[in-house]
Amino acid sequence: MSVVVGVDFGTLSGRALVVRTADGAELGTAVHDYAHGVIDEALGERRLPPEWALQHPADWLAVLRTAVPAALADAGVESHEVVGIGCDFTASTPLPALADGTPLCLVDGWQDRPHAYPKLWKHHAAQAQADRVNAVAAERGETWLARYGGAISSEWQIAKALQVFEEDREAFDTAERWVEASDWIVQQLGGALVRGVSAAGYKGMVQEGALPDPAYFDALAPGFAAVIPKLEGPAGELGAVAGTLTAEMAALTGLPEGIAVAVGNVDAHVTAPAVQATGTGALVAIMGTSTCHIVNAVRRVDVDGMCGVVDGGITAGLWGYEAGQSGVGDILAWFVANQVPASLERAAAARGVSVHELLTELGWARPVGAHGLVALDWHGGNRSVLVDARLSGLVVGMTLATRAEDVYRALVEATAFGARRIVEAFRAGGVPVERFVAAGGLLRNERLMQTYADVLGMPIDVAGSEQAPALGAAIHAAVAAGAHPDISTAADAMGAVERDRYVPDPAAVAAYEAIYRDYLALHDAFGRGEELLMHRLKRRRAEALA
Amino acid sequence: MSVVVGVDFGTLSGRALVVRTADGAELGTAVHDYAHGVIDEALGERRLPPEWALQHPADWLAVLRTAVPAALADAGVESHEVVGIGCDFTASTPLPALADGTPLCLVDGWQDRPHAYPKLWKHHAAQAQADRVNAVAAERGETWLARYGGAISSEWQIAKALQVFEEDREAFDTAERWVEASDWIVQQLGGALVRGVSAAGYKGMVQEGALPDPAYFDALAPGFAAVIPKLEGPAGELGAVAGTLTAEMAALTGLPEGIAVAVGNVDAHVTAPAVQATGTGALVAIMGTSTCHIVNAVRRVDVDGMCGVVDGGITAGLWGYEAGQSGVGDILAWFVANQVPASLERAAAARGVSVHELLTELGWARPVGAHGLVALDWHGGNRSVLVDARLSGLVVGMTLATRAEDVYRALVEATAFGARRIVEAFRAGGVPVERFVAAGGLLRNERLMQTYADVLGMPIDVAGSEQAPALGAAIHAAVAAGAHPDISTAADAMGAVERDRYVPDPAAVAAYEAIYRDYLALHDAFGRGEELLMHRLKRRRAEALA
Repeated sequence: MSVVVGVDFGTLSGRALVVRTADGAELGTAVHDYAHGVIDEALGERRLPPEWALQHPADWLAVLRTAVPAALADAGVESHEVVGIGCDFTASTPLPALADGTPLCLVDGWQDRPHAYPKLWKHHAAQAQADRVNAVAAERGETWLARYGGAISSEWQIAKALQVFEEDREAFDTAERWVEASDWIVQQLGGALVRGVSAAGYKGMVQEGALPDPAYFDALAPGFAAVIPKLEGPAGELGAVAGTLTAEMAALTGLPEGIAVAVGNVDAHVTAPAVQATGTGALVAIMGTSTCHIVNAVRRVDVDGMCGVVDGGITAGLWGYEAGQSGVGDILAWFVANQVPASLERAAAARGVSVHELLTELGWARPVGAHGLVALDWHGGNRSVLVDARLSGLVVGMTLATRAEDVYRALVEATAFGARRIVEAFRAGGVPVERFVAAGGLLRNERLMQTYADVLGMPIDVAGSEQAPALGAAIHAAVAAGAHPDISTAADAMGAVERDRYVPDPAAVAAYEAIYRDYLALHDAFGRGEELLMHRLKRRRAEALA
Repeated sequence: MSVVVGVDFGTLSGRALVVRTADGAELGTAVHDYAHGVIDEALGERRLPPEWALQHPADWLAVLRTAVPAALADAGVESHEVVGIGCDFTASTPLPALADGTPLCLVDGWQDRPHAYPKLWKHHAAQAQADRVNAVAAERGETWLARYGGAISSEWQIAKALQVFEEDREAFDTAERWVEASDWIVQQLGGALVRGVSAAGYKGMVQEGALPDPAYFDALAPGFAAVIPKLEGPAGELGAVAGTLTAEMAALTGLPEGIAVAVGNVDAHVTAPAVQATGTGALVAIMGTSTCHIVNAVRRVDVDGMCGVVDGGITAGLWGYEAGQSGVGDILAWFVANQVPASLERAAAARGVSVHELLTELGWARPVGAHGLVALDWHGGNRSVLVDARLSGLVVGMTLATRAEDVYRALVEATAFGARRIVEAFRAGGVPVERFVAAGGLLRNERLMQTYADVLGMPIDVAGSEQAPALGAAIHAAVAAGAHPDISTAADAMGAVERDRYVPDPAAVAAYEAIYRDYLALHDAFGRGEELLMHRLKRRRAEALA
């Protein structure tokens, strides 16, 4: 028997999954919670400004040290049976490092400097830099801008590097590399820095192997072109070998020295092979606190409000498209924490169910439209198709008879409408979407999933694995190890998807169609045009709090 | 010493107040809770349809029997010192009765018939009839329609009478009178049925002494003109004598036989003399679950979206205008019951304050605009200026950082914006509003009141009495008893108002001005035009539940 290990590095923990290469059987798993978690309030004694979010690389190494051997033990396999390891990571989570891979924050004298630490994907303090990244690109007519729906996010590599450049020049100068965590962990495992095409393309503005022009970087800030050599390193196709496990890492993980280490990947994108969606026409939605949508197409086209399109970004040989909804599960979590009365909390406790479960049961007890509400799901801004973080949420139709479960359902429906809007944008742009494949934590809520099917008017396939990203990483490892010739073949053998798990109910489809028209009208009324009310509200809020 | 008794009949209880005629000193008071309360679920064994709300006249008589003597005892005055009694009532609360004043529901054989009972103001089951009342009036070009802002409410006398006519013809035919509770209670006390001009004008379509044409009633439903003789009875000016206390009622109440019984009045309108606002230019806002606005003017003009204008409806010799906000305190109560998390409820309990108090403290801890929200206060529909019960509430600007106290404050602000919109409609129509005088339960919330001052940009005077309606009824009694020559003189002597209790803060006025512009834009976008989204949402809700 040959097995591989997939390691999924999340926001608060890392998970190792041991998978049989022949059929994808998940033999064992283990999770390690990061000791430092998200560092967003203080670094040691030092308070961090608002919107900061750092991580500690020691936490990531601890996942390799503890979760990997624990997963092996859970699987009951011998270490010599392991033929490869693959990793996926949150993105963009970049860090400054030395050429040998040492994180700057672990270099003597740097442990108290915030800018020496990895900036987690949800570090939002580089918005001013991102605004400049976009304005300068638009001014200069940079052609790559269209491949990111016209806007680079503050979450991505370049905006964060520019923030370091401007706020801690010494850290910027000392860092020999500026590297995605997904590539950094692979460098630790295999000894060589290889830039995975997915993170480089979607988060690093690398298009068809090339970064933007040096003059562009200097236009952002004189001297900032010095970042270019820090971004060097060979590009790695997905499923390729980035290196072989070093003796040191073999000792740390208990895995055999010399096994294949796969090129690193982004947690969302690595899910595609786990659900056998490596071809065209299948939109994979990874539905959690936020939702990421990925889909392959043969051609490169412009899609309204997409996050990015990258050659081979999901599957080698195809153009991989990404879109997203900034808030889904976290809107529901916010609602439960802030808008659900004590009476419901007590009722849930008495019944031994979660508040989410009770709200779902009550909210779906009546037919479509009975709550009389329609909402916009922009509490965390709108990533696609409006690409506007300054938008916000809205609920219309509340009366004195409106109950918490009504609003909860309206919010769920709004996220489904948001997903449909994205599907329609892909189709309108020329990217076929024939299937909707769902993965992620929200699969647990069957009413929510059925609502998506009814709103989309299409069946929903669901991931066969509860650990789809880790399984995807394992599939990449299997290909790197030579157990399968390519990702698609490996996906057929090892991935798992349940087809048509949710089938639209024609009556509900018709009922939602009318409400979706209302959602679209609100979407355009509040989301498009000049001098938007929601922008004004946020500006006013910022001024009042200043 | 001479004293009078004012009796205020509310929705759930009646209050008697003993007041000195010389200076308005409140000497004693007592409350009696209605045994039957609001009859809205079942009448005996019989379930009532949705939207019904009845009352039992025995509850009202029990107020006279228990609260009046209890208030006298509380005041420590001798009954021979009482020179008059006056009553105010919720409106429109009409009942079918015999000519001698016997309520139909107390006639043998009628106690199980719902249509034999008084229909409380919030009986909303006559909407279909109200729609017809309005449509037929518009069709026939009835000139009185403009005096009610173009729409008669389903809460008012005629719609309710038409419902009886159509749903229980025998009850309609047997009833010799169709009478407002405010006039019925006066008939009980003084022996004669006198129609107070206020209820007749605002709730009964009596304009300058005349009902609409009989042909109009027959156009509503053939034969319905038979209601006209049931509405007969002399009109009574406010403060006039409607009768003298009968021997029977003297025995029941412990008051002297033969004392003056004042013409009955509506609870909102009777508040004007209690706050010394019997002249022009002072808009009195009675702020409770809903808010009623009344103001006098010399001229009769058309005001956008007013509820009604009646000659002498508030003060003899002036045109009395009424406008209203359907939901104010009840929106806040709904919010606390349905949208406030358990954590806040626990924090309030730990602090020993109410949830309203805690939300107010937290919500106003930050400057104007810091919550980043703007709301529409239409959870109970919009009475003025849009006159549209099918509108609903809206909150824009929610983010994952939005807390319950933010929404609470935004809702309070929305009601203040709604009040300002009404003030501006009066001014635009030609009714001067120079002062804003507040009475009612919401006075307890000082932050809310200050917000109104800041939003209105004008100082707010507040009622000196916590029982302003009962004091107003007592003032009418004092005039009827001859202790004062007219209502204005009596109001000067007996009413009480604290001038400029809340003074606008210039910085807050400026900050709210910008948000009010946004409120107005939403107001017109969601409240005016064809094919309104909020109408569609309510229609969809009704269809889904049907």
